[in-house]
This record gives sequence, C-alpha cells and structure tokens, in this order.
Amino acid sequence: MSRSNILAVDAMGGDHAPEAIIAGLDIAAERHPQARFLVFGDETRLAPLLAGSKRLRGRCDLRHTSETITGDMKPTVALRLRDSSLRRAIDSVLAGEAAGVISAGNTGALLALSKIVLKTLKGIDRPAMAATAPSARGDVVMLDLGLNVVYDARNLVEFALMGEVFARIVLGLPRPSLGLLNIGSEEGKGDEILRDAAASLRASPIGGQFHGYVEGHDIAAGTVDVVVTDGFTGNVALKTGEGALKLVGDLLRRVFTAGPFARIGYLLARGALKRLRETLDPRRYNGAVLLGLNGVVVKSHGGTDALGFAHAVDVAMDMIENDFNSRIAEGLVAMEQALLSAETVIESHG
Amino acid sequence: MSRSNILAVDAMGGDHAPEAIIAGLDIAAERHPQARFLVFGDETRLAPLLAGSKRLRGRCDLRHTSETITGDMKPTVALRLRDSSLRRAIDSVLAGEAAGVISAGNTGALLALSKIVLKTLKGIDRPAMAATAPSARGDVVMLDLGLNVVYDARNLVEFALMGEVFARIVLGLPRPSLGLLNIGSEEGKGDEILRDAAASLRASPIGGQFHGYVEGHDIAAGTVDVVVTDGFTGNVALKTGEGALKLVGDLLRRVFTAGPFARIGYLLARGALKRLRETLDPRRYNGAVLLGLNGVVVKSHGGTDALGFAHAVDVAMDMIENDFNSRIAEGLVAMEQALLSAETVIESHG
Repeated sequence: MSRSNILAVDAMGGDHAPEAIIAGLDIAAERHPQARFLVFGDETRLAPLLAGSKRLRGRCDLRHTSETITGDMKPTVALRLRDSSLRRAIDSVLAGEAAGVISAGNTGALLALSKIVLKTLKGIDRPAMAATAPSARGDVVMLDLGLNVVYDARNLVEFALMGEVFARIVLGLPRPSLGLLNIGSEEGKGDEILRDAAASLRASPIGGQFHGYVEGHDIAAGTVDVVVTDGFTGNVALKTGEGALKLVGDLLRRVFTAGPFARIGYLLARGALKRLRETLDPRRYNGAVLLGLNGVVVKSHGGTDALGFAHAVDVAMDMIENDFNSRIAEGLVAMEQALLSAETVIESHG
Repeated sequence: MSRSNILAVDAMGGDHAPEAIIAGLDIAAERHPQARFLVFGDETRLAPLLAGSKRLRGRCDLRHTSETITGDMKPTVALRLRDSSLRRAIDSVLAGEAAGVISAGNTGALLALSKIVLKTLKGIDRPAMAATAPSARGDVVMLDLGLNVVYDARNLVEFALMGEVFARIVLGLPRPSLGLLNIGSEEGKGDEILRDAAASLRASPIGGQFHGYVEGHDIAAGTVDVVVTDGFTGNVALKTGEGALKLVGDLLRRVFTAGPFARIGYLLARGALKRLRETLDPRRYNGAVLLGLNGVVVKSHGGTDALGFAHAVDVAMDMIENDFNSRIAEGLVAMEQALLSAETVIESHG
C-alpha cells in the first residue's frame, strides 16, 4: 500500500458525521479508483456504515478512536485530546501512513493541530488557506482565506507560488494566471507590502503569469485564475461573494413562486436554471485546503452533505496523487534565486 | 434662495455628460421640488439642454466654465485647472453658494479637490467614502470604501458615527444597527485596531445600536444596517459583491436564451424577474458619498445614465435637506465625552 494514494479521514467531524462522511467517501471512491482511506472514529458506528458500501470494501482501514472534538470546542482544549478522530488522523500523516488528512469538523482545531503536528514545509514561512470560487470564466483559486491577518510581501509571494501549483493540479490549468488583490489596478495603489510583493512576483519564475493588481469585481469576472491576498481581505471577500450569490438565489426562489405565470415559467426554464444552480452550487466549491504544511490538509464545510464531502475528497486526492508538496518544493528552488534578485530590485527602489 | 436646498452640479463629468447629467437633474427635480441647482460647464452645450426641460426652468443657475477634467487626468494635473466645471462647483460650496456638490467625473480629482478645498469637518480626523448596497433585509450602508488604507481605531469609530447619521437620513431608519467587519464574530478575532474600535463603540452613545463584529456574508444578509470597515477591505468587499451579482445576472441572461422553452419561461416570469432586476439594479445604488467634509460631496458612477444620476442627486438632496453635517456635529459632541471614558477603558485593558 503506497503512501501516495492514502488519505486519512476524520469520520466524526461535521454536522452529519459519520453518515455523510462515509457516504461521501463512497462517491469519491468511484472517481479515484486507486484511493485508499484510513478512517478514524467510533468503530461501533463506522463498521456497519463501511460494511454497507461495496465500493469501499477492501479500501478502508478502520481505526477506532475514543474521544470526540465538538464543533464549539476551543482549539486549546482540542489539542489535549490525544485519542480524538481528528488528532489520530493528523498523527497518521506525520507517521507517514497517509499523505493527507480531511475533516469536516472543528476548523480551529484542524488548523491548530495540523500546524503543530505537521509543521510548515521547508522554505515556506507561513501556511495559507485556499479555496475555489465560481467565475464567468471557470473556477478561480483564492488565498489566503483567514490564516494570515499579519503578513509581509514574502508571504504573499509564497501564497502566489502555492496557489499557482494548486491551480495547475486541482483546476488542471497548464499555465494559470495570477493577480494580487488591490483597490485599483494602477501602479501606486495599495500599501508598500503589496507593491513589494508585485515587484517580487514580476521578477520571479512565474512573473510571466503575473497579471498585476486585480480588484474585487475581477474575482467573479475570472480576470485571473489565482487571486492572491492576505487572510483578512481574502476571508471577507470570499464570504461577501458567497453572501451575494445566496441573496440572488433567495430572491430568485421568491420570483418563481410569485404567481401562477412565474411558476409555469419556472417549469419551462427548469432545465437551464438547474444548470445555473449546478454552476453556483456551494458543494462544488467545498474543500478549503491548508497549503504549506508537511502533508495535504483539507477542510470540508461542516454542514455539507455526502456530495459536498466527496468534492472535498476529490480535491485532497488530486493533491495527493499529483504530489502537491513536491511540486511546491520544486517551485521554491526556482523561486529562491529569482527572489534574491527581486529583493535587490526592491532595495534599489527603496 | 436659501443655501439649504442648493446643489452644485459638475455638468461635464461622466461618460454621457452633459446630456445624461441634465436629464438626471430633470428627473430628480420632480422628486425634490424645493431643490435648486448651480450648473457648471460649457454654456453653449448646456443652455439648449436646460431650455429643453420644463421642470428645471427657473431652478437652475448656469455658470460657464472653460476647462475640462478628463476621466484619465491625474488629480495633480486636475488640481491646476482653476476654471474646470468640477473645481468651480466645489468652490461654490466653499463660498457658501451651495450646500453640496455632485459629479460623475474623475473620482480621483473629485476626492483630491474636495478634500483640499472643503477640508475636513471639525472633530473628524479623516473623511470616508460610503455607499449603499442591496441586502435580504433592505439597503445596507457600507464605509469606508477606499479612502483610508491607513487608519486607526478612532477613524473606525468616526466612520460608524457618520454611517449611523447617513443611514438615518438617507435610508430613513430611526435607529440603524452597526457592525464592524471582521473575519469572525468571536471576541478575539481581528487585529488590535478592530478590538479597540469595538470597545470604543460599545462605550459610545450609539453603543446600544452596535451589534459587534460581522462577517462578509452578513453584508448581503442584512445582519446590520451599517457595515463599518477600513478603506481597503470595504473597497474589495463592495466590488466583490458587485462582481458576484453581475456574474449571476450574466448567467441568468444565458439561462433564458438557452432554448425555446426557457425563452417562453422567461416571458411568463418576466414581471417577477423585472422586480428582481429592479431590486438589484446598480443604478439604485449609484452615488458614493464623501462623508466628513465641510459640504455634501456625492460621486455618481461615470458610466451611469439619467436614472442613475437622478438617484445620486436624491442622495445629495436628502443629505442637504436634512442638514447632514449639523447632525454629525451633534453626534460628535455626544461622542467626545463617551470616547474619553472608552479610552480609559481601553488603556486599563492595554
């Protein structure tokens, strides 16, 4: 059993665990025929669920755990539970038994535990959280989404590097374009950190893919494939966009129940509306990834169903099967020399 | 002719000036029967347009100007033009001839000129840009939208104060609720500036209206009436939300031309869809205001039509007729004492 296709699964995290977790694995197992799963959680609940899935037969290794991290538990408390399903799943990555871990449970605990146990990848200063969002020109990668409220130009450059590899692997883009989120596209916009990061990116090996500054509306327009920003701005932007999409969805539902004509209209346009709903389905965008750690770490939304969890497993397996971290390491080597020259450029402008 | 109903109009700014500007004034003139306008621009182009409007007859004072600030002109260059329509309009506010100014022209020039000529209101450290956005529970005020990339806790508190008065006057809410934009609603989220601002707001005269931290998705959800944030985050959030709404609009257009059934469906649901479109119509949200200067300053979107410009004039006239700046001054007096005590509270926590 090669490590390069094994995912550790926290089967007890999330609002609909463990049923939705195992059902999600069952869906993902078909899409990734080589994948194997280390499943951590309560044996008495998990064994019957696993026995019920033909596809998962012989592909899961069930590991009993005795403790549970609840959704509202503080990370400092969660850290002390040595036999929780989440802790044991992360430990299995450290031990080299699995190449990555997925959880739909407590976000703060997942972040804290995976940072402490797995530690940052050599050459990466700070990990970042990334996710995909819909745009007019296909999916867009955004990062950081909340880990780094304090950051510097070097961090933004590392986010760009990791986002570029992520877009290649998970979105399958051969040469993804990159943009730095700012409040205008002109040279002088934003603060010094952004200007330094832009100068470094231009001088880097991925400089040819760097589009320059992008603005908020460029995210949904799909102006670039990877939107790079700090954790505060990225978190607010992602949630603002999700909120706006939800608002229109709610208003549309009201539109099509507004009267008999509208209801018939809905029935006639149903097929096309279904495709629209699928394009914007939040489950398609489920799976935020923690980039820059020694191991693949994927957070599924706590409230998602089996289909949403399967999408998050997809993301994790894509990263594992394509050896995401080795590619980051390759990128870092190429970047290192270029960044040194870029720093010289910045200093001469300083 | 009392100053309390006079608006200075830059009639030459914007993509469709001066035609859309005068047509917009014509619409607004009906809604604000007491309003009078000082119209600045090229006399030979404006005189026939004004003569063509019955409603504007006797309510406009046309002032010829000889210079034009183009859309791509740098503020530093625009500042040197003493006889531009924008400059003369702003000068008329300084001279006390008008209570406010509106322009659909060069944003940078309007901001720079109005800050330099009109100066900051006594007691306000930095002006802020505000606008309204649609939400599930009515319109929401957001500020700052781009002026303040560098800011402190006191600035955020002043933004909250100005946003509260704005929501009372322009949205007509007797007791608007306020939220500070953050990446989580828990106490410890965000940086020290946000935590200090939250403590000050709680101790302020509007503390009873302060809901606490809100997140990106709370904007479109309408969780609070006024969303307070720094200029970088606010600018990104507003444009991200606009981008998401535009994305759905474009996708919907595609849905309803996807085939004959969808087209008939559209025709049947047309009435309800029209109301949805009206709810989210960007023209309804046209008119960003510059708060905290000695005079009302409103920026209309450059690409808007007569209806959009009329909405921006509405906002300006609402502020003028309700004496926005006097209410800010009243709020500041009440705030001053409370902030002093709040600072003591913060220091004792420091």
